[in-house]
Amino acid sequence: MSGNTIGVLFRVTTWGESHGPATGAVIDGCPPRIDLAAADIQSELDRRRPGLLPSASPRRESDRVEILSGVFEGKTTGTPIALMIRNIDADSAAYDSLRDLFRPGHGDITYQAKYGIRDHRGGGRASARETAGRVAAGAVARRVIAQAGIAVQAWTKELDGITAEPLSLAAAKTSPLRCPDPEAEKKMIARLEEARSAGDTLCGIVEISVRGCPPGLGEPVFGKIDGDLAGALMGIGTVKGVEIGAGFAAARMQGTACNDPIIPGGFRTNNAGGILAGITNGAEIVMRIACKPIPSIPGPQETVDSGGRPAVVTIGGRHDASVIPRIIPVCEAMVAIVLADHLMRQRAITR
Amino acid sequence: MSGNTIGVLFRVTTWGESHGPATGAVIDGCPPRIDLAAADIQSELDRRRPGLLPSASPRRESDRVEILSGVFEGKTTGTPIALMIRNIDADSAAYDSLRDLFRPGHGDITYQAKYGIRDHRGGGRASARETAGRVAAGAVARRVIAQAGIAVQAWTKELDGITAEPLSLAAAKTSPLRCPDPEAEKKMIARLEEARSAGDTLCGIVEISVRGCPPGLGEPVFGKIDGDLAGALMGIGTVKGVEIGAGFAAARMQGTACNDPIIPGGFRTNNAGGILAGITNGAEIVMRIACKPIPSIPGPQETVDSGGRPAVVTIGGRHDASVIPRIIPVCEAMVAIVLADHLMRQRAITR
Amino acid sequence: MSGNTIGVLFRVTTWGESHGPATGAVIDGCPPRIDLAAADIQSELDRRRPGLLPSASPRRESDRVEILSGVFEGKTTGTPIALMIRNIDADSAAYDSLRDLFRPGHGDITYQAKYGIRDHRGGGRASARETAGRVAAGAVARRVIAQAGIAVQAWTKELDGITAEPLSLAAAKTSPLRCPDPEAEKKMIARLEEARSAGDTLCGIVEISVRGCPPGLGEPVFGKIDGDLAGALMGIGTVKGVEIGAGFAAARMQGTACNDPIIPGGFRTNNAGGILAGITNGAEIVMRIACKPIPSIPGPQETVDSGGRPAVVTIGGRHDASVIPRIIPVCEAMVAIVLADHLMRQRAITR
Amino acid sequence: MSGNTIGVLFRVTTWGESHGPATGAVIDGCPPRIDLAAADIQSELDRRRPGLLPSASPRRESDRVEILSGVFEGKTTGTPIALMIRNIDADSAAYDSLRDLFRPGHGDITYQAKYGIRDHRGGGRASARETAGRVAAGAVARRVIAQAGIAVQAWTKELDGITAEPLSLAAAKTSPLRCPDPEAEKKMIARLEEARSAGDTLCGIVEISVRGCPPGLGEPVFGKIDGDLAGALMGIGTVKGVEIGAGFAAARMQGTACNDPIIPGGFRTNNAGGILAGITNGAEIVMRIACKPIPSIPGPQETVDSGGRPAVVTIGGRHDASVIPRIIPVCEAMVAIVLADHLMRQRAITR
Repeated sequence: MSGNTIGVLFRVTTWGESHGPATGAVIDGCPPRIDLAAADIQSELDRRRPGLLPSASPRRESDRVEILSGVFEGKTTGTPIALMIRNIDADSAAYDSLRDLFRPGHGDITYQAKYGIRDHRGGGRASARETAGRVAAGAVARRVIAQAGIAVQAWTKELDGITAEPLSLAAAKTSPLRCPDPEAEKKMIARLEEARSAGDTLCGIVEISVRGCPPGLGEPVFGKIDGDLAGALMGIGTVKGVEIGAGFAAARMQGTACNDPIIPGGFRTNNAGGILAGITNGAEIVMRIACKPIPSIPGPQETVDSGGRPAVVTIGGRHDASVIPRIIPVCEAMVAIVLADHLMRQRAITR
Repeated sequence: MSGNTIGVLFRVTTWGESHGPATGAVIDGCPPRIDLAAADIQSELDRRRPGLLPSASPRRESDRVEILSGVFEGKTTGTPIALMIRNIDADSAAYDSLRDLFRPGHGDITYQAKYGIRDHRGGGRASARETAGRVAAGAVARRVIAQAGIAVQAWTKELDGITAEPLSLAAAKTSPLRCPDPEAEKKMIARLEEARSAGDTLCGIVEISVRGCPPGLGEPVFGKIDGDLAGALMGIGTVKGVEIGAGFAAARMQGTACNDPIIPGGFRTNNAGGILAGITNGAEIVMRIACKPIPSIPGPQETVDSGGRPAVVTIGGRHDASVIPRIIPVCEAMVAIVLADHLMRQRAITR
Repeated sequence: MSGNTIGVLFRVTTWGESHGPATGAVIDGCPPRIDLAAADIQSELDRRRPGLLPSASPRRESDRVEILSGVFEGKTTGTPIALMIRNIDADSAAYDSLRDLFRPGHGDITYQAKYGIRDHRGGGRASARETAGRVAAGAVARRVIAQAGIAVQAWTKELDGITAEPLSLAAAKTSPLRCPDPEAEKKMIARLEEARSAGDTLCGIVEISVRGCPPGLGEPVFGKIDGDLAGALMGIGTVKGVEIGAGFAAARMQGTACNDPIIPGGFRTNNAGGILAGITNGAEIVMRIACKPIPSIPGPQETVDSGGRPAVVTIGGRHDASVIPRIIPVCEAMVAIVLADHLMRQRAITR
Repeated sequence: MSGNTIGVLFRVTTWGESHGPATGAVIDGCPPRIDLAAADIQSELDRRRPGLLPSASPRRESDRVEILSGVFEGKTTGTPIALMIRNIDADSAAYDSLRDLFRPGHGDITYQAKYGIRDHRGGGRASARETAGRVAAGAVARRVIAQAGIAVQAWTKELDGITAEPLSLAAAKTSPLRCPDPEAEKKMIARLEEARSAGDTLCGIVEISVRGCPPGLGEPVFGKIDGDLAGALMGIGTVKGVEIGAGFAAARMQGTACNDPIIPGGFRTNNAGGILAGITNGAEIVMRIACKPIPSIPGPQETVDSGGRPAVVTIGGRHDASVIPRIIPVCEAMVAIVLADHLMRQRAITR
């Protein structure tokens, strides 16, 4: 991973700013002869769009993906797949007042420190809009890993302290909050409405499950698949914590309880979360991420201006009350991209 | 990160198996004209050695590092720095009984699945011994970042549920468990002795602090410094969770509470843990990792043999009761390596 | 270099097929705050367009570049610069007869062997059209190196055996064949017309000169700048040979004649071509490439079909009689890209 | 390729200075379960040693390779293979007079310019001694490609203008100058003796042949195999020119003559040198490199000192009169390393 590219063999580069002409991705190294249509990508982008919640993001993002290269007569050719999504709802004038102010919790101040210049409109490159390119590329990765029988699903495990049980993961694919627990989901929706009314934002925990992953993916010692997955997930803007298997709870377990006994064809428990010594063991891969609340809150906030002087910033416009559920397909995309890459790496050493 | 190499400009490759002739690292891309002596590296390796605890690892690892290249008259030359540590206390015969058995919680079964062959002696490449190369390379990275005023310190925050306060970080550099809270440390030591007597292993949480880091390190969007740090830390064998700043607690905060107000020269709070949008903001970088208990527990364990048949494995020899405190310098090394790489990357775009 | 990406810090990925919707490039890692307008890139693309020669490529490529990201208010921001050029003159039907035939001298047969699928229209990814993306990215690279005082110029040294002297490199920037020797150029043009009439294609030798390059660019031992330059130039479709400084003539020199005596501020001769031990020495970098004739010749050619059966292929359409002069800006682009990358790498180790 | 590492999947990093403690290589990514013994590597190193020529390098390099990791019970395990060769004949005092003088034709002045420091003893990292690590790693690469039926052979085609015909490539494997033309070889040896007596050095052209390479290796457009091969070969210290297939002669051919007609199972001619559009076509890969004469000539030479003042340098010790034949195994190693990497990359996209 460097700059805006991830992967060794299945390499994804995303590009684009929130209020520039377009955003997109290039996938270099995708295997040939995989069925791929724009609709396959579009359906994933649609899952990232604002939902039906009253509290959902009101910006009408009409993300239409265009495949610019790498696909011929419905199949990948092995050459780079360029994907582009035009930015059509970009009201940049609304951001004029932020040209010289740094929004707390956002990357405004760090981009300025790093580059000495920044596109202040909508967060520029640091906008959540950038994840459209990730989701588009992830849709391709999902096709690659699906061929090996691997499926990725993320779902809402907790929102502002309300926890959900994995009662129906199938239903969670389409439910408003991607939550497999209908009762919990109702409470979550109500809480989101409250927060919105109160002028605040919330967040929670997403669980990601990978089923059907063969053993053997991952490399010692700086290419471990848990390292790569954690890096990919922590690199999503909102994420402040990642855990695998028993995760932080493992820190309070004893060895006799934590070890997963090995049985023919599998394991008796799965505290390891499907990964041992950085390599998949064939069990379900289980990860959880902690999302911070969206920093674009209403009301005045203490900050400084570009000259370093104390100032007050007020963020206009309407914003989501939570990155959940829109973060869900982004998580899935990142995990799919990492797995596609490692799947190909493993093929390279297999005769 | 791929295979056994980490970094874009400051690239570290480690090599070596637990019971092979030697283990080591090559650092390619270290800046020239940095003072470096074997003693600088040796002192870090010594911090990784078994301590004075009765429960400490009894294997006498006499890790003597040799600098094989890249240093001339006490200074780095810019060419690759090859470091080697001979394995001298390698009683391989003790592992004969494990040739065809997979130890639960270890990488035996995944290495076999991946490569179709494995060095079963002491865990081979998946042994914690591999971290000697990381610590050696990390010692060089520490010199690089020290020139920019950056210092890394890890310390024991929790062991088997006993929590410590950061009362004296200076003392934690040399205390038996690298714990800054003497009272908590006493309890931790007692708990370790109990576990050892009971034939069990424990673990805990390590906090890592980076002070003096300039703003601007990290790159969008797959080269974010939080992504790289999380990937590097999760790639340590024992780690099952990583969090930055408020971490998992952020998942239950509201936006108004989580945002760090910006003030001249800094921030009023540090829920971000020193990183915004993947780029350092100049505040202290704060991370915590969850370590799982050491899987080498005494007593028989349920497993399968290399033919997939049910079996019982008993791990001989004496083992540590906890990866704490030996994991501490490994954490510091990984963080220093990531920071050195990003420091150089940032210089590349600065005129 | 891997797949369709070149560079460590200044990373260029190109994408696009000859008859797909578009072709383009993404530049990841460009330094911020560099003046850049679409016109800067367009002017380079225009230099790649068919010229005024009667024998020039008759395909009207109206290559209009669009900057999709990474530039804000006329300056680079440090984020990825995505460039797109729509393919508007793509008469794919003309290629229907080539769907199952392999053209000699082209990549048809090797793409099929590699991927088991290929876009047969106009050579697909292997078309010279792909170089539009390189030239576009090269225009950005030229801005980067220009800031350090580095200028790249390629010119026609030989065409079908007619050799040119570097009488006026300034004039060569705009002359029809980018040739600095007007008399030789007249003969070359006449020869091209003859070849075109005779239904044949020609080629020649291009010399590339880099002036103003500071000493110190390049890295031992697999990142040498001569290795990187040679790799980049040999990766242009038409190139079959690369030499630096005295080049192949050096193979017949004696050491006493070949060594360049060192004098204050420079060298007495330049057999080294500006590079010693893989690192620039401050003198002019001098390279020459050998281009093969364009394989798209009129008339029937012996080949096989996709089933491996003997067949005859006749390539329709009109084609250039020579890659010269259109290859000139491509050479300049590749050299500029390599230099921009090494310039940034050198900054990373400089304090 | 960056710094001292080459390869995407089969990654070789070399390290070591001429007069440091040791030199070596780490191979990260070698496939598992390949038979490998130190003797396999040693035999290649022995081919690099000074030969029986009276004019051969008189330094007694007793290069004994030690395998430090990655091999278990005679087979590769998939983990990094660390190789070390101790430097035992390092008379550094002989170089004291060169501490502040730059030798013409060597990297002394460029290393100083780049790093601001250099190990002046024997050329440091820029010494031909560095190639020992390449040859050692190449020996492993040869095992990898041999499994796919690929064989690499380099031989002396020309020395100081004396040209050889490929009369017996088998004999060239062991002949003094690796020359397949006994009559030409006799003349070459005589010429070398003359040059040695006259205090001069010579050079020539090496041809490299790859047989048994399957079609399909190489990637568009910056991972072309001709680009990678040319880059790897130009990165050998002595090389000033690389050509493939018809090479520079192609620049004077017409399209009708240069195209290789395709016939069932192959090609009627091989002007392409086995590569079309950057991808192997199954025919023999044919390359030639131009080597410059060794710059370490006897007698005083014009130079400057480290302060930039005019000076005269005289290089003591005895040196080879030609890099031929010692360069031969280095060429073979580099080609084998590139092919092993591309062979693995191709497996990654093959199901």
